[in-house]
Parts: sequence; C-alpha cells; structure tokens
Amino acid sequence: MGINFTNFLSSKSKSKRLNEFQDLDHIDGVAISTISADLYNSSRDDLVMFYFRDGVNYASVYTQSKIISENIKWNLNQKAKKIFSLIVNTRNANCFTGKQGYKSLEKIAEIISLKLTQKQKEDEDQPKKINSKEIIFGCTGTIGEIFPEEKIINKIPELIEKIKYTQNKYIWMKSALGIMTTDTQPKMAMEECSIGGSDIKIFGVAKGSGMIQPDMATTLAYIFTDADLPNDVLKKLLKKNISNTFNAVTCDSDTSTNDMVSIFSTGKSKHPKIKNANDEKIKNFDFALNKVLLNLAKRVVADGEGASKFITVNIQGCKNEDDAKKIAFSIANSPLVKTAISGEDANWGRVVMAIGKAGVQIKHEKLSIKFGEISVVSNGKLNSNYKEDEVSEYMKSDSIDINVDISCGSKSFKAYTMDLTKKYIEINGDYRS
Amino acid sequence: MGINFTNFLSSKSKSKRLNEFQDLDHIDGVAISTISADLYNSSRDDLVMFYFRDGVNYASVYTQSKIISENIKWNLNQKAKKIFSLIVNTRNANCFTGKQGYKSLEKIAEIISLKLTQKQKEDEDQPKKINSKEIIFGCTGTIGEIFPEEKIINKIPELIEKIKYTQNKYIWMKSALGIMTTDTQPKMAMEECSIGGSDIKIFGVAKGSGMIQPDMATTLAYIFTDADLPNDVLKKLLKKNISNTFNAVTCDSDTSTNDMVSIFSTGKSKHPKIKNANDEKIKNFDFALNKVLLNLAKRVVADGEGASKFITVNIQGCKNEDDAKKIAFSIANSPLVKTAISGEDANWGRVVMAIGKAGVQIKHEKLSIKFGEISVVSNGKLNSNYKEDEVSEYMKSDSIDINVDISCGSKSFKAYTMDLTKKYIEINGDYRS
Repeated sequence: MGINFTNFLSSKSKSKRLNEFQDLDHIDGVAISTISADLYNSSRDDLVMFYFRDGVNYASVYTQSKIISENIKWNLNQKAKKIFSLIVNTRNANCFTGKQGYKSLEKIAEIISLKLTQKQKEDEDQPKKINSKEIIFGCTGTIGEIFPEEKIINKIPELIEKIKYTQNKYIWMKSALGIMTTDTQPKMAMEECSIGGSDIKIFGVAKGSGMIQPDMATTLAYIFTDADLPNDVLKKLLKKNISNTFNAVTCDSDTSTNDMVSIFSTGKSKHPKIKNANDEKIKNFDFALNKVLLNLAKRVVADGEGASKFITVNIQGCKNEDDAKKIAFSIANSPLVKTAISGEDANWGRVVMAIGKAGVQIKHEKLSIKFGEISVVSNGKLNSNYKEDEVSEYMKSDSIDINVDISCGSKSFKAYTMDLTKKYIEINGDYRS
Repeated sequence: MGINFTNFLSSKSKSKRLNEFQDLDHIDGVAISTISADLYNSSRDDLVMFYFRDGVNYASVYTQSKIISENIKWNLNQKAKKIFSLIVNTRNANCFTGKQGYKSLEKIAEIISLKLTQKQKEDEDQPKKINSKEIIFGCTGTIGEIFPEEKIINKIPELIEKIKYTQNKYIWMKSALGIMTTDTQPKMAMEECSIGGSDIKIFGVAKGSGMIQPDMATTLAYIFTDADLPNDVLKKLLKKNISNTFNAVTCDSDTSTNDMVSIFSTGKSKHPKIKNANDEKIKNFDFALNKVLLNLAKRVVADGEGASKFITVNIQGCKNEDDAKKIAFSIANSPLVKTAISGEDANWGRVVMAIGKAGVQIKHEKLSIKFGEISVVSNGKLNSNYKEDEVSEYMKSDSIDINVDISCGSKSFKAYTMDLTKKYIEINGDYRS
C-alpha cells in the first residue's frame, strides 16, 4: 500500500504498466466468491459474487447506448434502498436476448435471494430476509446469444458455499480475473483517505476491453468502500468523477450496450454523518475516489485490444470544457493518428487534421502542439527548432503524450487512448480464420 | 458509353469494381494537360491543368474542417464570375504551410495567368486577358511540408505547351492518374442526359483515399459538363447532390483539410436558358449529375486504403433523414463492425451495438436487420429461421449490404464504406518500418 502509483501508468514499459498491483486487503462488509460456471467451456472462473452481509448503499452509472442489455434493464427496475449482492458473469452480454434474458435474471435473483436468506439464518445474529430486488447484475460478452440460465443456476449453491467474509489480495485478484473477457491482465486499484478523521478504504476492480467471441469491448467497474455514505451522495460523487475518468477513455470509439460502473458503501467505518455531496469532510474521499476510478480507467486503456502504446491527449486553452473534450476525442478516436503512433511516426499533420475536424472554432495562428515536451507547432507554425530525429526518438516510447494548446481560453480536458495495431484487426476480424 | 454501370459497383469482384471504366471522350471548352513536376522524386504525373479557353461557370463545395488548406483559402477568396483554369497538384496538401503556402499560390496563379493570356493571343480569334483571380487550385498530400513552389513554377511553360484542346479516354485517364496519391486505380465516371432536347455530357474525375507519405485520405472530385448553367444553379445542384453521394461515404471517419468537389460548366451545348435550380428542364441533368457523383464516390470507397470489401449500409424507417444518417454512419464508422466484415464474420451483435450508440431513440421490438437479403433480426428478435451457415456464406462476398429497418417512420439514408483490414494499418502505420 506504500507504493506511489500516481505515475506508474505513464511508465515506459507496458508490462510494468499492466503488472503492478496495489495490495488490496479487506473491507468490512464485503464478501467475495468466484467460480467457473463453464460459460467458456473451460475451467476459468466466469461467475463472481460480491455479497454484502449487512446490505450496502450503492449507486451506478450505465451505458448511454439506446440499446441496453437485459441486466441493465433489471438493475434500473430495482429501487431497493440497500442491496445485498452483485453477480457478474462473463462470456454472455445478456443483450438482445429479449424476454428470456430478463426472465433468467428474475429466476436467478429469486434463487440467490432464497439461498442468501438461508445463509443469513446460519451465519448472522440478526438474520435478514433478502429480497430478489436487492440483487443487481453485471454481464459482459457476446450480444444476442441465449443467456446460459441453467449453467449459472447449477453453480449457485457452490458459489454461495465458497463465500469468504475476509478478503485478501488473492481473492480480489480472483474477482478481477473472474470478470475478464479478453483482457490480458486483471485490473485492480485502491486508495486510502479519511472522512472526519476516520480512515477510509476505496477498492476497485474493472474489466475491459476485450472479447472472446468477436464482440465489443465492454467496461465494467465496481468500487467498494467502508465509508458510510447515503445513496444520493454516492450517485453525485460517482457521476461527477466518471466524467474525467471512465468517460475520458476510448479504445476504439465503440460504445457498449453493457457499460456499468457501480460504487458500494458498506458503512463499516464510523465517521461523522455525511448528508450531502458538497460536505467539506468528504473532499478527501472525493479526491481518492477520482484516483481509483482514473487508475482503473487507465488500466482498461493500457490493456485495450491490440494496444502497444498508451496515449494521453491533453487539450488546453479552450473556451469551455466541452470544446476541449470534442478536440481530445477527435484526436483520440482518429484512426490515422492512432496508426501513425503505432508506426512510431511523428505525423503531427494528422493531429492538425483531427483538431480541424472536431468542429470547434480555433485560431490557426494561436495553435501549439507538443509531443511530450517537444514543441512541434507553436503559434500556428512549425517550430523553427523542430528536429524530426528528436521526435522520432520520443515516438518509440510506450507512453505518448500529445499536448495541444488552443490558446483561446482556460479550460482543458485530458483523454486517454491506445494505438491502433494489426493485432486489433486480428483480435476483432480474424476470429474465424 | 453503352455499358450499364448502375450496378457494377456491387459486383462481387473487386478488380471488376475498380477496373471498369466508361468511355469519357470530349467536352467542348475543356482542355487538359498533365506533367511530372518531380514532386514524388519520380517520373509520375503529379501536376494537372484543366484549361477552359472561353472561361466556365463553376461551383465548389469544400471540407467542413476548421483547419483548411491554403489552396482552399485561395479559392474562397477569389470571386471571379468565370474561371479559366483549375490546377491540381499531389504530394503536398499545402496545409499548415502558412503565408509561404498562400504566397506560392499567388505567384503560381500570376505566372499561369500571364502565360495563358499569351496563349489566348496565339490561339484565339478574340483573345481574352486572363486574371490570376480566375484560376483555382486543388492540392492533396502531406500536411505541414513546405509547398514546392519552385518545382511547380519550373514546369508551367511545359504544362501549358502540352495543353490538348481535344480530349479522349486516354487524356481523361491521364488526368485521373495525375491527381492520385496512394489510390490504386484512377476514378472516372460519366453520364449523358438532355436539357430541353439538347444532349448534355457530364464527366468527372476523382481521387481518394490514399497517401504516400503517411497522411490523411483526401478526396478531390471535379465534374465537367458542356451544359450552360449559371453559377448559382451549379452551386445549388452540387450542394444538393453531394449530400447522398460524397457526403454519404466514409473510409476511416477522418475528415481532410483539403476536400474539394467542383463542377465546371462550359456552356458549349445550346439549350434553353436555365435561370433557377428548380427548373423542370434540368430534372434529367440533376439526376445524371447525382449518378456521376455517386459513381465517383463509390469508387473512392471501393479503393479505400486497405479495403477488401465494399459495404453499403442502408437505413430505413426513420422519423427523419438526419436520424437515418446518424445510424448509418455509426455502423459505417464502427471499427468493430468493419473488422468483423473484414474477418467475414456475420457478427450482427456489433451492428446492434452501433445502432444503439448512434444516440437515436429506437424501439427495440420493431428493429429488423438483414445481411443482403438474409433476415437476421426481425421485430427485435433473432429470426427463428436464422442459419449461421447461410449468412457466413454471404459474408464471403466482396460487396456486403447491411439493411436496417427501424420501423418508426418513412425516411432513409444509405452510406457507403469499406472494411478495416491489417493492410490499412500497414499503409498508415508501418510507413517507417
């Protein structure tokens, strides 16, 4: 927990970026269980249960797609004040599965709620009756395939038997591995902070962006904290901190039907009561939550399909943040910029093109572009000291910063992406060959 | 001229799609000259002059990028009623070349206007004085390199000497070849029509989407007709017919700083005077112009960088055309849809994803998707007769139609694109290796 992870994602070594993990240990009120339901026809874990024995406050943000998966419909329909479990399966997105997909979730939630109610009777001093509405789902995988209801139901007894009330690094790693699709590495992050003098932990796991059967990259991220925060405060903090973390990353510009980021607050840490999201006492928590979300979001990009480089696009000097965001994503999603970077080519002309097509009015003569710290364009002209060799050397790094200053205002936005490689085409196109 | 080209672009054979040409012959009032100005350090033609000895009415549409090339700035600044020449160079986009790039054009236009005025004295009964403002430019190639003013100026005398007042298929082919960058084939198209009983020709040449030094795909298209139409009518017809032709194609979603489509009307055909774009007498011309533009636009996509398949995305049943266009481009620009098609994978789930992310409200239960004539999804459900084998066989075609019916209205839009292949990455990323 002592490692400073602030800058590790800009590490020059890709393996370093992906393989360094913080030591997630225990959060009171969280329990984890993972199992293989044989969804991949292999023995890998593909079904993960997060069980909250005392219930948790929670908040979620979901994909903005106009076509959403059945599990997201289910989650939106439940209005429980506290929830007792999050169940995540991979391999099947439960999207475009129609009534069958939704009914399967109803059935699974019903069975799990009965089994967990029974477990409450066995384990708790004051057992609670758990309702199926107090269970939410995360699904990721192929769209349009029949949801594997039976396979999942068959494994519920064993999944519940395996629940561990105490977590350690190993069990968090298992949960992060269990929600992966074609991710090459699990994604975990943590921060510690305080609320009104009490120590607080914030842990998170995420997946993305991968596929096994060719399908879209889906991002799921789950944040766990022992803080005691009401649902509306969690919702506000999550929404606010998503904008410059998960909503600032792009792998390939495609938006999933299943994207889901949730935060669960066990309330086990005793700190002064927090009633609203602007309370000064949670400034520190707010900041730490942003760090956990950003850390996970960066890990998603760094492990993007076929990625060989981690790219930070930093736009400054705009009239408003919206303009800065448009330009940042125009660059981050440009196939020509992304292929140039995969080819280690300092093709700044393509950055100019991507700025131009963003649709934001800019003043040509004020534009500046840097690759890392190397000035390429300043005041709308190619820098007179520009040395192609120097920039070419920089382009060999695993981590590339594109810094653009529009010089028309004070607002900025930072987007994170990856390069576009043959490996991406291979993963997504050559599946059948 | 007798060949029916209407459906040739949906031909299963890629070589057939690209290699079949119509027989463009002569249009009175147009003259063509091509030369190598050694811009590529090779002997290939890279400088093309279209000379209109009696001047022509004209109209142009340009890129919507907020960063535009110096030649587009030049063209926008000239307000001549008629123009006498269009000069097109490849290899250098004359974009982000600043004052030097613009001044070079001033100088070149000045020299050409003097030389052409001299040629008028030699060749014409009633010689005209040609002003530098009556010359416009098309440029395509790398952004940000110094514009090769000297190389071009050195070749002007020879370029003018080589002017041919009579054209044939060969000289049109030379002009189409002379404006290419990494295009693998020249792009030419023609239609014949009539205005008030007079026969009219519409010829066109285009380039895109290629690069030699890694740079963006730039589309240039030039249309020539012997019709006698005023500038405002030409402008209206061009704008109207661009929307479902050149503005309906996408190779890789990147917008050039240099895109330019122009129409030139020599007025050599004597037909009833046309004063406005709604005149019934030009319905036939309007239709033929659309066919020429669509033919050229399809050729640009069929020859897109690394393309192995030609894809038509046909969206029907929307409330308005704008919605249909949003969905069409969301599918046509999705890297996951495009890689699936390059991998010949009938991954309809990705089509669903791309429909969802388009931001248009749709009714899930009314959605239908066909690959070609094969129904995959109908009324929001996987078709009960769906046979993966049958669709897989279809996906082997060189030309793939994705037909989507939203069933919420009567408006439609058709977009044209290509698949995303390793070859695209190679062309745009591996340049230096």
